Amino acid sequence: MELRKFLSSTTELSNCEGPQDHVVLSSRVRLARNVTGRPFPGRAKKASRVETCDFIQPAIAAASAMRGGFSESMKPLQALDKQLLVERHLISREHAAKGAGSGLVLSKDETLSVMINEEDHLRMQALLPGLQVKQVWQKMDRFDTSLEKKLDFAFDSQLGYLTACPTNLGTGIRVSAMLHLPGLVLTDQVNQIVQAVTKLGHAVRGLYGEGTEALGHLFQVSNQMTLGESEADIIERIHKVVLQVIEHEENARQTLLRTKAKELYNHIGRAYGTLAHAHIVSSKETMNQLSLLRLGVKLELFKGLTTPMLDELFLLSQPAHMQELVGEKLSGEERDLHRADLLRKHLGKVKGLKLPE
Amino acid sequence: MELRKFLSSTTELSNCEGPQDHVVLSSRVRLARNVTGRPFPGRAKKASRVETCDFIQPAIAAASAMRGGFSESMKPLQALDKQLLVERHLISREHAAKGAGSGLVLSKDETLSVMINEEDHLRMQALLPGLQVKQVWQKMDRFDTSLEKKLDFAFDSQLGYLTACPTNLGTGIRVSAMLHLPGLVLTDQVNQIVQAVTKLGHAVRGLYGEGTEALGHLFQVSNQMTLGESEADIIERIHKVVLQVIEHEENARQTLLRTKAKELYNHIGRAYGTLAHAHIVSSKETMNQLSLLRLGVKLELFKGLTTPMLDELFLLSQPAHMQELVGEKLSGEERDLHRADLLRKHLGKVKGLKLPE
Repeated sequence: MELRKFLSSTTELSNCEGPQDHVVLSSRVRLARNVTGRPFPGRAKKASRVETCDFIQPAIAAASAMRGGFSESMKPLQALDKQLLVERHLISREHAAKGAGSGLVLSKDETLSVMINEEDHLRMQALLPGLQVKQVWQKMDRFDTSLEKKLDFAFDSQLGYLTACPTNLGTGIRVSAMLHLPGLVLTDQVNQIVQAVTKLGHAVRGLYGEGTEALGHLFQVSNQMTLGESEADIIERIHKVVLQVIEHEENARQTLLRTKAKELYNHIGRAYGTLAHAHIVSSKETMNQLSLLRLGVKLELFKGLTTPMLDELFLLSQPAHMQELVGEKLSGEERDLHRADLLRKHLGKVKGLKLPE
Repeated sequence: MELRKFLSSTTELSNCEGPQDHVVLSSRVRLARNVTGRPFPGRAKKASRVETCDFIQPAIAAASAMRGGFSESMKPLQALDKQLLVERHLISREHAAKGAGSGLVLSKDETLSVMINEEDHLRMQALLPGLQVKQVWQKMDRFDTSLEKKLDFAFDSQLGYLTACPTNLGTGIRVSAMLHLPGLVLTDQVNQIVQAVTKLGHAVRGLYGEGTEALGHLFQVSNQMTLGESEADIIERIHKVVLQVIEHEENARQTLLRTKAKELYNHIGRAYGTLAHAHIVSSKETMNQLSLLRLGVKLELFKGLTTPMLDELFLLSQPAHMQELVGEKLSGEERDLHRADLLRKHLGKVKGLKLPE
């Protein structure tokens, strides 16, 4: 099956609502694994990487969790295909640059994905909407266990799972939650919270991982350490810190409603007015304005507008998705026009939209 | 009659459409006159000014053109009253600072007004919508002639009408047209046009006369010289130069539609979206955004929105009018809230508003 047909047939992810999704968009677990007796991808020659990929990929694709899924080498994928996958957070930017000797397996609903020969032989990801770090870990754990019956993962009784980079050594786990924190941003408290969370040993980053700014008031919280702690402890710590951040964000939103309601309505109203009537909109502006609309929906300031609608617009308004939607290659300027058309079409027909007076 | 009752009963001016009003909002003639044998206001003691005012005002109020009008000393007028008059362009900021010894007479429809003891004994103004400099001069001339039968105006056969400031000497006339030039501003041609018009011996200024920036893409063109040329020649020259500016503005708008339609729709759509959904809006932003909506209406990009609606919002959204509308004294922040409420109420209910796709 072609990737684009596969992707366009699955919109479940963006249309799912999860627990605490007024603040937590999604929970994710990533595991790094390598098979014994084969060089790490960064140290392997091309022939070796192809051989490793050909060895690993069928085993993954055959797992029951991957039934009805998608399995392909990175080689035949076009640049736009890869960019679509990056925008859906299914592969890393680094993996998008790979070709022969690297591969990809996706489950039917896109909640499970495996990059083959990225930095490690296997980079497995499980994703669930809302705050479900424990559930997403169970999902990942089951999948990992099923693979371990077929693949001999490199493991040391002292060091744990061996990985190409020492920062992943041990559990090879990275647990993260994508948090929507407009309240903390608008009340100027977000830096303080980020610092506190960082001091507790967690990493906080913008939307697209390392080195990117926090577009759309989105922040990803993840564990820093993979060594010396069990997976269950790591999960528990992330769960707790996220609950604390949720409480701070809830308080910030209530403070805004209580003491700066008009300023809040002004931000949200202008965001709606702009996106529903502009004819040229950048991807960055779209993210920031949709973020404010999401806050409005969660504060029940809008009728006729839902979180899944906004999350879908958020996904579709990104560069590769815009081109896939229109069906042709588009320059940045052309995308800004089509993006505005998309937003006007969807937001303009919203009925009963009403901010309180 | 109280001033505020008088003003609120007259909305004809803002609801009038005139010739060429896609570019020309209004045409105005101002005449400076002084009566013989009395010192200029700036040289007179208070008692003398009061006496002069008491002598002149009844003669003006009794003129047939002022039937059903408003006549009052500046003394009893409150600060808000005066500000309302300034915002309606019926008195100057300087006259608003005056008290006993200065007066004001307005015709019923506000198209004729006389300031008594501003810089000169009489500053008379006639105003008509659209490009009607010749008609507004005829109106002013008839009124001036009717007053000359009752008042002995200081006149010298060499110098013409005597005035307090030599820049008004001779005809004492200032003819002006208020031009809406968003096309020239958006195509970056306005400075070039302003320079050309200035070289032809005319003054070009922003909305509120000397020293103010061009809010709302509004520019006032007026004659510089009052000496050595007949009134008819001055009128004719202004009329011609305004016709030329209209042509440039029309060309600029057509260029925008032809080569930058999306950018134009983007400006206008965002202006509508902002004003129809914001909860805090400054007076300055309102002027600039309403200006873009006016352009949209004149380009027939909107249904259900009319120039008189916009001109009324333009008037009502100014600081003193906002306070008069709400019925209480308001701080700047409070005005920004009430202004947004007013704009949302009026623009939000516009039906069938549609930009072309």
